[in-house]
Amino acid sequence: MTMNFILDVDGVMTTGQFIYSKDGKEYKIFGPHDADGLKLLRDKLNIKFITADKRGFLISKRRIEDMGFEIELVTEQDRYSYIKDNYGFENTFYMGDGIFDMKIIRDCKFGIAPKNARIEARKVADFITPSNSGEGAVCDACIKINRTFFK
Amino acid sequence: MTMNFILDVDGVMTTGQFIYSKDGKEYKIFGPHDADGLKLLRDKLNIKFITADKRGFLISKRRIEDMGFEIELVTEQDRYSYIKDNYGFENTFYMGDGIFDMKIIRDCKFGIAPKNARIEARKVADFITPSNSGEGAVCDACIKINRTFFK
Amino acid sequence: MTMNFILDVDGVMTTGQFIYSKDGKEYKIFGPHDADGLKLLRDKLNIKFITADKRGFLISKRRIEDMGFEIELVTEQDRYSYIKDNYGFENTFYMGDGIFDMKIIRDCKFGIAPKNARIEARKVADFITPSNSGEGAVCDACIKINRTFFK
Amino acid sequence: MTMNFILDVDGVMTTGQFIYSKDGKEYKIFGPHDADGLKLLRDKLNIKFITADKRGFLISKRRIEDMGFEIELVTEQDRYSYIKDNYGFENTFYMGDGIFDMKIIRDCKFGIAPKNARIEARKVADFITPSNSGEGAVCDACIKINRTFFK
Repeated sequence: MTMNFILDVDGVMTTGQFIYSKDGKEYKIFGPHDADGLKLLRDKLNIKFITADKRGFLISKRRIEDMGFEIELVTEQDRYSYIKDNYGFENTFYMGDGIFDMKIIRDCKFGIAPKNARIEARKVADFITPSNSGEGAVCDACIKINRTFFK
Repeated sequence: MTMNFILDVDGVMTTGQFIYSKDGKEYKIFGPHDADGLKLLRDKLNIKFITADKRGFLISKRRIEDMGFEIELVTEQDRYSYIKDNYGFENTFYMGDGIFDMKIIRDCKFGIAPKNARIEARKVADFITPSNSGEGAVCDACIKINRTFFK
Repeated sequence: MTMNFILDVDGVMTTGQFIYSKDGKEYKIFGPHDADGLKLLRDKLNIKFITADKRGFLISKRRIEDMGFEIELVTEQDRYSYIKDNYGFENTFYMGDGIFDMKIIRDCKFGIAPKNARIEARKVADFITPSNSGEGAVCDACIKINRTFFK
Repeated sequence: MTMNFILDVDGVMTTGQFIYSKDGKEYKIFGPHDADGLKLLRDKLNIKFITADKRGFLISKRRIEDMGFEIELVTEQDRYSYIKDNYGFENTFYMGDGIFDMKIIRDCKFGIAPKNARIEARKVADFITPSNSGEGAVCDACIKINRTFFK
C-alpha cells in the first residue's frame, strides 16, 4: 500500500510571509532545496499539498504545479477531518507549522514541523527540521523520511 | 466594559522593511500566524490598527482590511494623545516597536514590543515577544493576552 | 561650522540585496527606524547620501528623496577623493559597509559600519552598529552620534 | 594556463529563494559585495556561471550579464560531466550549495560551499564561507581564492 505525504504550503514550503502591495497579496517566498528533496520521494510516496490560504491560492498553486504536484484548498477547520476521511492518519506523513496543524501532526503516522513552526506544532512533532521553512525545511523532511522509512 | 487592543503596523505586523522600486514604496512583508492569533481575541477585545506611514498607507490598509479589521492614519506626534483621548490608557493593550511608541507602551495597561523592536520600546514593555515582527510576533502577543487576561 | 554626515545607501540603508526580475534590478529592501533616526540629526548635521550603484540609482534616489534628503552618484574609485575635496575628512562622519569604504571610514572624523558590513570595513570603524543594515543600523548610528557629539 | 572558477547561481549568488506570484517565478534575491569580490579575480581566472533553473533562467541571466559574465543552462544530472569535459576538475575552482553539487565540490581542485549550503555540500568543501549566500558568500570565496592562490 502506498503511504501519503501531505504538506501544508505557507510556513512549510514558504517563509510563511506574504508580500503585499496596495492591490493585495502579491507574492510568497519559496525556499531552496525543497524541490530536490521531493524528487527523492516522488516514486515512493503519494505526495499532496493542502492550503487554507484562499487569497493567496493562485500563488501557491502556481509553485506547486511548477514542481509537478497537486494542491487542494481546505479550510483550517476542515483540515483534520479532510485528512482523516481522504487518507487516514495511519497511512499519512504530515508536515505543518501552525496552531491548527497541531492535532494532525500529533495523530498522523509521522508528524513533521519546521524549525520555525509555532511551538504548539513543534511540541507534538516526531521530527523538527534543522532548517527554517523557506530555507530548506522540506528538503530536510524528505531526507529524514527517506532514511527512516525507505532504507 | 470592552478593553481595546491597539497595534502599530510597520515593525509589528511586518518586518518593518519597505520594498522600493524606482516608482516608490511598493511592498511590505507581513508575517505568518498573526491572523490566527488575532482570531483568538476578536470576540474578546476591540482590536484596532494605527499607522504613521502615509506613503505606504494603502498597502497596510489592504492587509488589515483583508483580515477584517480597521486601520487609522495617525502621525507619530499625535499618537499618544490620540490613544489617550479615544480609548484611554487604562482600557488599552498596545503593541509597538519604535522610538515614538515608548511612552504609549509604558503608560497603557499592558504594553507589548516585538523581539526586534527598538531597545527604547523593549525597555518599557510588559511583554517582549519570543518571535520577531513579520515572523509571528503578533500571534505571540495574542496568545499571551489570552492566557493572562481571559483564562 | 556645520559637520557633515555622509552615508552610503546599499548595505547601509538597505539589506544590501538586489531583487532581480528578468527585466533587471527592480527592488531594494529599506529598513525600519532609519528615517526616525535621521530626523534626530537633520537640524544638527549636513546629511548627504552617496551611491555607486548606477543601475539601481533611481530606486535609491526615490527612497532618499522620499525622506527629504539628497543623493549623489559617485563611483567607488572616486569616492575617497570626492569626500575629501567636497567635504573634508575632518568635518565628516561617514557610514559605509564595503571594501571600498574602508579607507574613508578610517580617515574621516567618525567612521561607522553596520553589524553586517564586510570585516574590512568593520575593522577600521569607530562604531559598529548593534543592528544589521536594513534592520535599523542607521537609526543606531544616529542615536550614537547624537549622544556622543550633541549632548 | 588559466584556471577556471565555475559558480552555481541559486543559493550561491542568491539566497536560494524564489519569489512567486500567481504568474510564476518572478524574482530572485542577489546579495551584496559579490560583484566587488568577483572584480578582484576577473583578470586572474576564467569565471563562468552555470544554473539548472530553467524557469528562472532569464532572471539569473540578467543579473550575471549585468555584472559582465556568462551563464550556461546545465541540468543537474549533466553538471558533473559538463564540467569534467569542458574544463577539467584539476583546473577548476567550484562553488555550489546543493545535493547535486557534492561530487563536483569534492572532485575539483578547490571546492567551496556557502555557510547555508546543504550539509552534504559543506561536508566535502575545502572552504565554507563565513557569510550566507545572498549576504556576501561569493565575496568571501573570492577573497579566499585571491589570498590562497594569487598572493
